[in-house]
Amino acid sequence: MEVTKSNFYQLIPEIKEAIEKCDFISIDCELTGLNTVNDINAFDTQKQYYEKVRKSSKNFLIIQYGLCMFRYDHDTKTYKQASYNFYIFPKSGNKYVPDHRFLCQSSCIDFLMSCGFDFNKLFKEGIPYLNSNEEDKYREILSDVQKIRANQIQNNFSPDTKNSVISMTVEEKTFVDSVFKEIEDFIASDSEEHALPKCNAYLRRLIYQEARKTLKNKACLETRVLDNKDRVLVVTRLKSKAAQEEEHNKMIEQEEDEFEKCVGFSTIIKAIVESEKLIVGHNMCLDLLHTIDQFLTPLPCNYDEFKELANFSFPKVLDTKYMSSVTQFKNLIDSNVLANLLATLQKDPFRMPDIEIEENRRGYTLNSNKAHEAGYDAYITGVCFSTMWNYLHDGEKLSNPDVSLLKPYINRLFLMRLQDSPFIHLGGRDPVPPRDHVVYLSFPKNWKLNDIIQLFSPFGNIYVSWIDDHSAFISLQKKDQVSIALSTLSQSDTYSIMTYAQHHSKLTGENNVSASSSNSSSHKKRSADNSHAAPKKRKTNIGESVLKQKLNNESDMGEVCKSTGKVSTPQKTLNKKQLQPTFSELTWD
Amino acid sequence: MEVTKSNFYQLIPEIKEAIEKCDFISIDCELTGLNTVNDINAFDTQKQYYEKVRKSSKNFLIIQYGLCMFRYDHDTKTYKQASYNFYIFPKSGNKYVPDHRFLCQSSCIDFLMSCGFDFNKLFKEGIPYLNSNEEDKYREILSDVQKIRANQIQNNFSPDTKNSVISMTVEEKTFVDSVFKEIEDFIASDSEEHALPKCNAYLRRLIYQEARKTLKNKACLETRVLDNKDRVLVVTRLKSKAAQEEEHNKMIEQEEDEFEKCVGFSTIIKAIVESEKLIVGHNMCLDLLHTIDQFLTPLPCNYDEFKELANFSFPKVLDTKYMSSVTQFKNLIDSNVLANLLATLQKDPFRMPDIEIEENRRGYTLNSNKAHEAGYDAYITGVCFSTMWNYLHDGEKLSNPDVSLLKPYINRLFLMRLQDSPFIHLGGRDPVPPRDHVVYLSFPKNWKLNDIIQLFSPFGNIYVSWIDDHSAFISLQKKDQVSIALSTLSQSDTYSIMTYAQHHSKLTGENNVSASSSNSSSHKKRSADNSHAAPKKRKTNIGESVLKQKLNNESDMGEVCKSTGKVSTPQKTLNKKQLQPTFSELTWD
Repeated sequence: MEVTKSNFYQLIPEIKEAIEKCDFISIDCELTGLNTVNDINAFDTQKQYYEKVRKSSKNFLIIQYGLCMFRYDHDTKTYKQASYNFYIFPKSGNKYVPDHRFLCQSSCIDFLMSCGFDFNKLFKEGIPYLNSNEEDKYREILSDVQKIRANQIQNNFSPDTKNSVISMTVEEKTFVDSVFKEIEDFIASDSEEHALPKCNAYLRRLIYQEARKTLKNKACLETRVLDNKDRVLVVTRLKSKAAQEEEHNKMIEQEEDEFEKCVGFSTIIKAIVESEKLIVGHNMCLDLLHTIDQFLTPLPCNYDEFKELANFSFPKVLDTKYMSSVTQFKNLIDSNVLANLLATLQKDPFRMPDIEIEENRRGYTLNSNKAHEAGYDAYITGVCFSTMWNYLHDGEKLSNPDVSLLKPYINRLFLMRLQDSPFIHLGGRDPVPPRDHVVYLSFPKNWKLNDIIQLFSPFGNIYVSWIDDHSAFISLQKKDQVSIALSTLSQSDTYSIMTYAQHHSKLTGENNVSASSSNSSSHKKRSADNSHAAPKKRKTNIGESVLKQKLNNESDMGEVCKSTGKVSTPQKTLNKKQLQPTFSELTWD
Repeated sequence: MEVTKSNFYQLIPEIKEAIEKCDFISIDCELTGLNTVNDINAFDTQKQYYEKVRKSSKNFLIIQYGLCMFRYDHDTKTYKQASYNFYIFPKSGNKYVPDHRFLCQSSCIDFLMSCGFDFNKLFKEGIPYLNSNEEDKYREILSDVQKIRANQIQNNFSPDTKNSVISMTVEEKTFVDSVFKEIEDFIASDSEEHALPKCNAYLRRLIYQEARKTLKNKACLETRVLDNKDRVLVVTRLKSKAAQEEEHNKMIEQEEDEFEKCVGFSTIIKAIVESEKLIVGHNMCLDLLHTIDQFLTPLPCNYDEFKELANFSFPKVLDTKYMSSVTQFKNLIDSNVLANLLATLQKDPFRMPDIEIEENRRGYTLNSNKAHEAGYDAYITGVCFSTMWNYLHDGEKLSNPDVSLLKPYINRLFLMRLQDSPFIHLGGRDPVPPRDHVVYLSFPKNWKLNDIIQLFSPFGNIYVSWIDDHSAFISLQKKDQVSIALSTLSQSDTYSIMTYAQHHSKLTGENNVSASSSNSSSHKKRSADNSHAAPKKRKTNIGESVLKQKLNNESDMGEVCKSTGKVSTPQKTLNKKQLQPTFSELTWD
């Protein structure tokens, strides 16, 4: 079902109910861009990967969010699904909400256009959102405004008694006196209100100052903003306290309504967090990062903090890109690009469970032909997941999906473009892939691939992963050649060579050679095994929970994280020689 | 006339002709955003203003460009105009063109939507462009590619003789041998071509290496990219050198055509530069900066370099916002917001000249009702300009527009939000507004406006222009009070006070107290007075002219200019107390 701001608010209860009743939620996001600098190295650690992706994708926006709630119906032994395709766009024009700036990548815009994405609908009808920092600030200012107004009703005029009294020049006094002459005429008249002569803010301040002294209990003064943005003072009949209070309460109602509208789509994400349901995505790492950053709380600089935050917010996630690339699926699935995965899963030995659209709800079918619409991709992801899950039940007709079968796949995020496919293990210790066959080489800037191939030609085939124009990781196909290569190549003034482990400890300034440093306190508190029984404290207003990390007063754009150590990954823009297609393809698969 | 990439290329000759024949060109731009940080101070110098605007607006895009060419027809004594409204959007998907990232500001997107802007049309039909750096890089790579191909035709195979020969493992040798068995079978067959088994880039390299040795004069080998992005090698019949050359020439034609397409809208801006025509804009500073940055060359960090570049590119510009705010117009024109200016100029004492749409061309009329469409705003700007110009002719019916009357207005860019309205004088020395009545005050962070008002209450009214949360410029209404205030307030430990001039020289580390430093070499070469007779060297390919400044290998986003001295303007994000509307309004007008 298409959801824009014109039907979103009515649909909230229905969507929350679907979240509450479902067995799992599949998600997908469409973004305005993917990265600013394509600097992932095939031999990055999970921590390096996170830091790079966080930095390079930070200012892009989720503009479409697909949610598909799957509920297993034990009576009919079928899945019932309801799908929602949300258009998401930041609100502007509310003075309590920041005027968002965001990045677009023209290739992504082109891609979305070619898939039929409607940007006019997005910009006109997109649902707003606030992260918890923005929501807190809004709430704080709104409370202040409401308190001041309540106070004004009590004291008739502004409680601005702490302000000093400004003395007036003769000209100012003449002007203010003429204004109060007009006010007295108004009081004596039958009019309901009277607009005072237009004047600047300083003079308005003087008029308010005078009013506090002389107007009390006689009339009300208020500032109004005209259509042309001019501000004028208007004097009105004194209203009864009861009338003023009624007006105040009506305004509070409107303000709270507007506040809820601004929180918008974040309400849904918070409902998902509170539900603790299993979240399924395909290649979901970037979607998860953006979901947290945009709708919950800005992504922390620190990788361990991110893991803790992500695992707290979404205690059970499953990445179908990971699932389809390991265990028995690895050999049965040639390509796990989403469309190819679906095609494979529609054939033997897989059997798709029965999936129907929930009664009185909308959803996609396999014939919907809406590839790359977030809602449809979420649906397909859910279909693929349920088929793979089905397969795990010894290929038998599904009667009662067994969650324990998912244990090897839970909370493992697939990482694109890494050579040896390590994953991020949320709520667990990250795997450390063996990189004994990898060496670090630094060399003169004018070297080309051929120079490296030449250098290593005595040691068999190599895979070159450029770091910048004067260093690279070299992976040797013949692992037994590594020590010979290291000793043979150690005596040059032109280049220098070291093991991957040596390079890594040099970078991190540690003696500990472990490629991963994901040993945070969170893993001691909650391992992957007990992540299904997350503490119930999550059922609080997320704005007031752990997520309320006013982490780092980050500015909207280009913020810089403080380095937590001596880590200084070289990150130069790829040069021409690195962009030659052969290099990225140079692999033995 | 609406111009998108579907009619742009056919229209180029017509548009160039209109530029060539016109008397002046009025312009207007629609942008994806205006600024990232609103940090202009009311007492900035022109140099500070430029540096801030350049930095804060850099990554926003012009997405619509309005051009209106006005030609005075001496026979009919009327202006003939032709208007063009261009949709502009960066191209992606061409490997020689960068995948642009750009910023959007949600309030600007909202505003454009409310004016009926069609973003789907923009993204689908926008005309591409390249700045001179991008164009040069494209040209360079394309020339290389074409040279290599020409060489290949001469030598049948890649001239890759400098590459070392890679030795093969037994498995690789077996594979390569099997491929060459297939190739021999193909040569013996009747087929026109034969696809070789899919293999990775490394193996393809080995096959090419072998082909150079054994295949010469027997068959051709080429890499083809399939629809699914796979690369396969295809062996074909050896073509005659003549056939290959014909193919090569056809490819060059296609490549050059694609190159011209990518240069796109920049062609038009370059034609304007070469024409040296008078360019008229309303509040045109930002439009001019973006025009140079997006279509010509990245804006220099250095203000004097900018002035030189802008004056070289556009030797005659006229800002109707400036024109309408000075000399005799100042007292006749209340508001110079474009729509208000037009309304004023339609009434006495102004008389609008006769303006008609050029025969066989399209243009707007005053009834077009297309406010904030770039083409319409350009048209209105031209109408306003011609009416004010008309007025300068002693109010008589225009018979022959006199360019010399424009001298007081030429090359002066209006600067928004500065308190004493200095302007940027392109090709001339910037004015230095007297700021003897302004003092610089630094104070504790917890101070509020009231504390400052209190402090200065003995010295009359003040205008406060916050720099950050602990400093501000204070302008005194009573100039004779400045020296008394300075001596009275000089003995505090809580705050410190100095003259504007003292503060400025402290900032710039200069003894020279001049608020402006616009004394660059360009002004010696060409003053405003002789700017109407700019040197003809402009009539060169702009890509090869002065504009070809490979200034600073800037990265796409967030580049940092080297500071040219000790200048370090405090630029903190505005805090809450600065955002209260009264502060920006606190003025005596």
